[in-house]
Amino acid sequence: MTETLVKVDLSSSAYENENVHNRWHPDIPMIAWVKPGEDFILECYDWTGGQIKNDDDAADIRDVDLSQVHFLSGPVGVKGAEPGDLLVVEILDIGTLDGARWGFNGVFAKENGGGFLTEHFPDARKSIWDFEGLFAKSRHIPGVRFAGLIHPGLIGCLPSQDLLDTWNTREKALFDTDPGRVPGLANLPYAPTAHMGRLKGSAAETAAATGARTVPPREHGGNCDIKDLSRGCKIYFPVYVDGAGLSMGDLHFSQGDGEITFCGAIEMPGWAHLKVDLIKGGCAKYGIRNPIFKPSPIKPTYNDYLIFEGISVDEAGKQHYLDVHIAYRQACLNAIEYLTKFGYSRGQAYSILGTAPVEGKISGVVDVPNACATLFLPTEIFDFDISPTASGPFKGVEGAELPIAFWKDKA
Amino acid sequence: MTETLVKVDLSSSAYENENVHNRWHPDIPMIAWVKPGEDFILECYDWTGGQIKNDDDAADIRDVDLSQVHFLSGPVGVKGAEPGDLLVVEILDIGTLDGARWGFNGVFAKENGGGFLTEHFPDARKSIWDFEGLFAKSRHIPGVRFAGLIHPGLIGCLPSQDLLDTWNTREKALFDTDPGRVPGLANLPYAPTAHMGRLKGSAAETAAATGARTVPPREHGGNCDIKDLSRGCKIYFPVYVDGAGLSMGDLHFSQGDGEITFCGAIEMPGWAHLKVDLIKGGCAKYGIRNPIFKPSPIKPTYNDYLIFEGISVDEAGKQHYLDVHIAYRQACLNAIEYLTKFGYSRGQAYSILGTAPVEGKISGVVDVPNACATLFLPTEIFDFDISPTASGPFKGVEGAELPIAFWKDKA
Amino acid sequence: MTETLVKVDLSSSAYENENVHNRWHPDIPMIAWVKPGEDFILECYDWTGGQIKNDDDAADIRDVDLSQVHFLSGPVGVKGAEPGDLLVVEILDIGTLDGARWGFNGVFAKENGGGFLTEHFPDARKSIWDFEGLFAKSRHIPGVRFAGLIHPGLIGCLPSQDLLDTWNTREKALFDTDPGRVPGLANLPYAPTAHMGRLKGSAAETAAATGARTVPPREHGGNCDIKDLSRGCKIYFPVYVDGAGLSMGDLHFSQGDGEITFCGAIEMPGWAHLKVDLIKGGCAKYGIRNPIFKPSPIKPTYNDYLIFEGISVDEAGKQHYLDVHIAYRQACLNAIEYLTKFGYSRGQAYSILGTAPVEGKISGVVDVPNACATLFLPTEIFDFDISPTASGPFKGVEGAELPIAFWKDKA
Amino acid sequence: MTETLVKVDLSSSAYENENVHNRWHPDIPMIAWVKPGEDFILECYDWTGGQIKNDDDAADIRDVDLSQVHFLSGPVGVKGAEPGDLLVVEILDIGTLDGARWGFNGVFAKENGGGFLTEHFPDARKSIWDFEGLFAKSRHIPGVRFAGLIHPGLIGCLPSQDLLDTWNTREKALFDTDPGRVPGLANLPYAPTAHMGRLKGSAAETAAATGARTVPPREHGGNCDIKDLSRGCKIYFPVYVDGAGLSMGDLHFSQGDGEITFCGAIEMPGWAHLKVDLIKGGCAKYGIRNPIFKPSPIKPTYNDYLIFEGISVDEAGKQHYLDVHIAYRQACLNAIEYLTKFGYSRGQAYSILGTAPVEGKISGVVDVPNACATLFLPTEIFDFDISPTASGPFKGVEGAELPIAFWKDKA
Repeated sequence: MTETLVKVDLSSSAYENENVHNRWHPDIPMIAWVKPGEDFILECYDWTGGQIKNDDDAADIRDVDLSQVHFLSGPVGVKGAEPGDLLVVEILDIGTLDGARWGFNGVFAKENGGGFLTEHFPDARKSIWDFEGLFAKSRHIPGVRFAGLIHPGLIGCLPSQDLLDTWNTREKALFDTDPGRVPGLANLPYAPTAHMGRLKGSAAETAAATGARTVPPREHGGNCDIKDLSRGCKIYFPVYVDGAGLSMGDLHFSQGDGEITFCGAIEMPGWAHLKVDLIKGGCAKYGIRNPIFKPSPIKPTYNDYLIFEGISVDEAGKQHYLDVHIAYRQACLNAIEYLTKFGYSRGQAYSILGTAPVEGKISGVVDVPNACATLFLPTEIFDFDISPTASGPFKGVEGAELPIAFWKDKA
Repeated sequence: MTETLVKVDLSSSAYENENVHNRWHPDIPMIAWVKPGEDFILECYDWTGGQIKNDDDAADIRDVDLSQVHFLSGPVGVKGAEPGDLLVVEILDIGTLDGARWGFNGVFAKENGGGFLTEHFPDARKSIWDFEGLFAKSRHIPGVRFAGLIHPGLIGCLPSQDLLDTWNTREKALFDTDPGRVPGLANLPYAPTAHMGRLKGSAAETAAATGARTVPPREHGGNCDIKDLSRGCKIYFPVYVDGAGLSMGDLHFSQGDGEITFCGAIEMPGWAHLKVDLIKGGCAKYGIRNPIFKPSPIKPTYNDYLIFEGISVDEAGKQHYLDVHIAYRQACLNAIEYLTKFGYSRGQAYSILGTAPVEGKISGVVDVPNACATLFLPTEIFDFDISPTASGPFKGVEGAELPIAFWKDKA
Repeated sequence: MTETLVKVDLSSSAYENENVHNRWHPDIPMIAWVKPGEDFILECYDWTGGQIKNDDDAADIRDVDLSQVHFLSGPVGVKGAEPGDLLVVEILDIGTLDGARWGFNGVFAKENGGGFLTEHFPDARKSIWDFEGLFAKSRHIPGVRFAGLIHPGLIGCLPSQDLLDTWNTREKALFDTDPGRVPGLANLPYAPTAHMGRLKGSAAETAAATGARTVPPREHGGNCDIKDLSRGCKIYFPVYVDGAGLSMGDLHFSQGDGEITFCGAIEMPGWAHLKVDLIKGGCAKYGIRNPIFKPSPIKPTYNDYLIFEGISVDEAGKQHYLDVHIAYRQACLNAIEYLTKFGYSRGQAYSILGTAPVEGKISGVVDVPNACATLFLPTEIFDFDISPTASGPFKGVEGAELPIAFWKDKA
Repeated sequence: MTETLVKVDLSSSAYENENVHNRWHPDIPMIAWVKPGEDFILECYDWTGGQIKNDDDAADIRDVDLSQVHFLSGPVGVKGAEPGDLLVVEILDIGTLDGARWGFNGVFAKENGGGFLTEHFPDARKSIWDFEGLFAKSRHIPGVRFAGLIHPGLIGCLPSQDLLDTWNTREKALFDTDPGRVPGLANLPYAPTAHMGRLKGSAAETAAATGARTVPPREHGGNCDIKDLSRGCKIYFPVYVDGAGLSMGDLHFSQGDGEITFCGAIEMPGWAHLKVDLIKGGCAKYGIRNPIFKPSPIKPTYNDYLIFEGISVDEAGKQHYLDVHIAYRQACLNAIEYLTKFGYSRGQAYSILGTAPVEGKISGVVDVPNACATLFLPTEIFDFDISPTASGPFKGVEGAELPIAFWKDKA
């Protein structure tokens, strides 16, 4: 029977579990060793370590302590893995835990992390999603239900010291260009809330002082939030330290491309069944800098979409040069505006874009000066027809604002 | 029998055809009128109006006169269309022309337009693609053949005077921030090579002076270069002038997301069979700013991909803030490097990414400071297996540089 | 430019065209020779050679002379092909002819061929389908429109004399078990209406006396009516005579699995663009008795179905032993009954099942005594929702009987 | 938390579990009641109730007692359900049980049930399949691995007494046409091994005497073995008794269309998460005789196939009239012959066709006298390329016979 290398107890603090960690550092000890060809199971906390509750109050989203994220299960050592190898990870399956068949989606307050549309949605919002087997639906958002493309938001190997130094240096340089910006330009190492796994005492303190935060995706993969990294896929990770040190977490029941609400997918604890193998010297053989992967043969067949375009002219009408970020933001805003015509509140529409299997594409990036991004909204996830017709939109739902918590309340 | 409203003669200049134009301006007269519910055919020049030849010399790519592009067929007037309506356009089919069953892909010189990777490919390159029915292959790029997702790179309605003024103002403002930049930040109106369709004399001269260039996508759609806008899809365009004035051109036999080589798809002349309808007052009813569309029910079923990640750290290792443009560039560079391991030259690999049905996705845009973009390279288009294996890459092809033309030659 | 080896003139009789034939016989001369690796175009008559008109009268369906079918374009000789080889045929594309952008679907009278449900639909019925680019719709059947999966109903190589003798012997043996049956158990050679291509005089008469009729599929492929043999696919045919002798015809704009109305698909004239190659000795190498093929990478993406089951208990309640034919008939009858609840006449529903991209599957064939067959009806081809709901069926159309012609009229 | 209405203990006999039954009869008491809109979980035995072991000996397959099958979990009563209603069942998910992450595929001896190709494979064979999360592979069949399309082979509602009488009458009539046939034409009621659930004593004995065997699919659904009835789909069942009485079992990890080896899928115990609803009077409203269903939005994306044709000429060369059963048998035999060229034994090939997500289609059923059936073999499930090439087949595996047990051994 497949061994479960990491177990989680959702009723106690993730800090008490020495098989998880929330920073990247080469000194974090392996929690177990496996051989190439072996499979194993890792249970995972939700990315916040249980800070968010299944209720109708967004205060926990507003007050979330982001310095604690993400709680990762691992690192798992792979025998024989050496720097320059490719670690092949097949995600055999991912599932939910008994007593935790629900997830949350949140919009962070602008003062505390924000999100892709934070200028439009500066306040904290929350929606709770209930799982019905393969499907998710929300009591906060009527008329929509979809099959999940379950995936880890975050997975990757431990960095070498060199790589870690590179990260810290370049992110600090960016941060320093505007240190007071809200939200911040980067999240720098922060020792007080670091969880260094089995590393203890002064060694842990030293490592925590420079351990990289887990927020951004980097060369090793990490927090890529790629929804297509779903169960059934096969990933090829660069190895930087002996034993590779594979860690993962931040499970998502479903997510739209971009994870635009930031807290962003349908976040959940759960388990992942993994199998590992090695391609010796694979980084050089294949010229690999970042992970590559092959998709799962199993996926939702949503095929009919309503597709929104956006160009790199911002909300104020200002022209930007081939800026895909702005173009995708316009596509998102266009989709939100559209959905309000069917009865949804703007917050509900925003949450749908963050959680449903929405595709976000870089359609054109050369037609000076406008980038063109497209947002593919699957029509089959709605209980009613959202296509444009001569008779105008059908008010399919009685929309309502999501649970919201204002920053000022905190004062 | 369906009427062909615009015919093209590939043996004579597009300037001699009064049913085409190469600028956007509300004064360009309709070349014909149709009723809602009617279908019709438009023949189209390739976007350059025949400047590129089916040969093995990239000089024509280097010397292309971009002030002439794009030659559009139309505008077609739709009876009853008024500003604020949605013009529904169904692309019933698109095809090639007798004697022109080939297309071209080019990389422009940095000094003359450039492309997405112009710093890496500053010189003009060309590849010629031959059509075998539904498939395309190139004598310049062995080992690859794929079914085309045929689409117009450019389609949209005439702007109103107000909208045109907005375009000109905002693009000029951007241009003025760095007027000497090569390539330019924007392409401003340029009368000498304007073709104003049936507008003649001083009226044409006046309009040409402010007629918007066709290069960028804008609110009306225009040069979106969205590969998914393929035959069989249905598009909803905002209407800005009485009669709508639908124009189209820049047919692509196939293109990857981003159209990264700029001249970018497999470019071709051809014909399009369209059907139009109206949703009166549709812009307000549905809150439409940019066109929206529904995809075709017919498309290539390529499902197995090798997926490359890129993050917003540039080639010099500099950290950028959530910049999807840079992230996608890294994903493209990663894919190019990978393909060289199988024998392709870098130029060949670049052309494959520009022409094949590659998906480019905005995977993560909130994980500060790195955006994560993914490039989905379909594996089934290759004659050989491009997956990573323990035995290392199989040299599937004897790569060679594409036909190339250096800028200095011109002097 | 690709050569058109066979041209058809729809205004004159197919009998006047010596590049077509309507019987299978090894003595029929090649109409042209091509080399492996070459591509060419064949124009084709509709399978009846123009007997059916674009009108609202089913008399031509009732009176059709089936001894004339199918008019095939070819045979094309392939240099170097020898018995035992595999002829590789890639269907590069298929299209319609100018002035013939329509097709017909018919139900034959029980007295003249019948169909799959001939006991339920004993009289001749007709529907005309108009092509709108990639799509088909019928003025006789409202509320339904779909993308065509264009394919040849009939394609294959000339039989050897031995193979021909085998066919004639075994079919005669079946026929003789009930020679007076209406419709007949088999169609035996019939010289008076034979068209032997370029074979003339007494040689033609001799061959016509034993030339196999083209109605059934056989070892060489032939009239398989497999809708998945669509443009873009690649077929591997056994070769029986020197030069192979590839012939094809019976083009279908679209068809449901089973081609249940017999005249059965949306029948049309048109053209096919083919490319041929050889696998020498391929029959033995791969153990091939019947053609095999690989599907097209391009196809309609209809994914949502309403699926009807049928078991091998017949309409009278009699139990049959694992009879898939009867099981599929029940599934078809169930689907027809269902569609009548939405307003369609039974004849309209029957025609939809014959023409739309319906899947017919052999779901279970071992659970004694009932076979289980399933009919997958794509829901997206309808203008309205055909799913079952608590509120009961929505009368989406005002159904009407198709044009019908009774056999008794003929007397 | 979702309630598990039926639990199974794989270490004890299914006969000891009063929440399962192995016959159809209206008197079997409900094991629990649920309301429309509720969801619940049913654990299930494998269809044989644990007769088959995870070993390399086919004796258990040879000696299986088929009079015991199928052990079904239920019946579950649905409040308010009345005859004539449609019971809507959504299969929210299906999974495997701890300690039972494997399944079996068997070929029954001709003397004990046989299978679709029993004349070709008269002896008992077995293969064991191990589950790796979403995937299955077999130590008995190298070179093949695929994602499962998990589904119940058997699901349906209790029959009314009238319906039961109809079944018994018509099946007896068939049986009596050849009572000594091996395998039998039908499986008639057989009391000695009946398990009537919570029905006890003389009432159980009386019911067992006429309780229908569970082997065939019937009007109520039952043992349809439709692989597309997979997790995520929604089924509409006719209701015949008050409370409906939904039962299910015979879980399959994967199966090919036709379930041709009879013991035929990858058989396993497991659990199913279901949700029920009602359409009052739905049978009449929609003209429903047999269940209908809508497919799951989640499924394997295998898209590339090698497709084998078969026609209704049997192995001896005898012509049959539009017999799809024979045509599909030929397609299967063609595929088996083909796979032997790549190294597989015939038994291995047969098992692949039974277990992998093979599509079996009724391509043509009107082209007298030959039906045409097609078998779609997914190519992506193999570790090596099975396409035909000029160089001939690649011996991808060292095939070996499956574990086999001869009937004579038993004597």
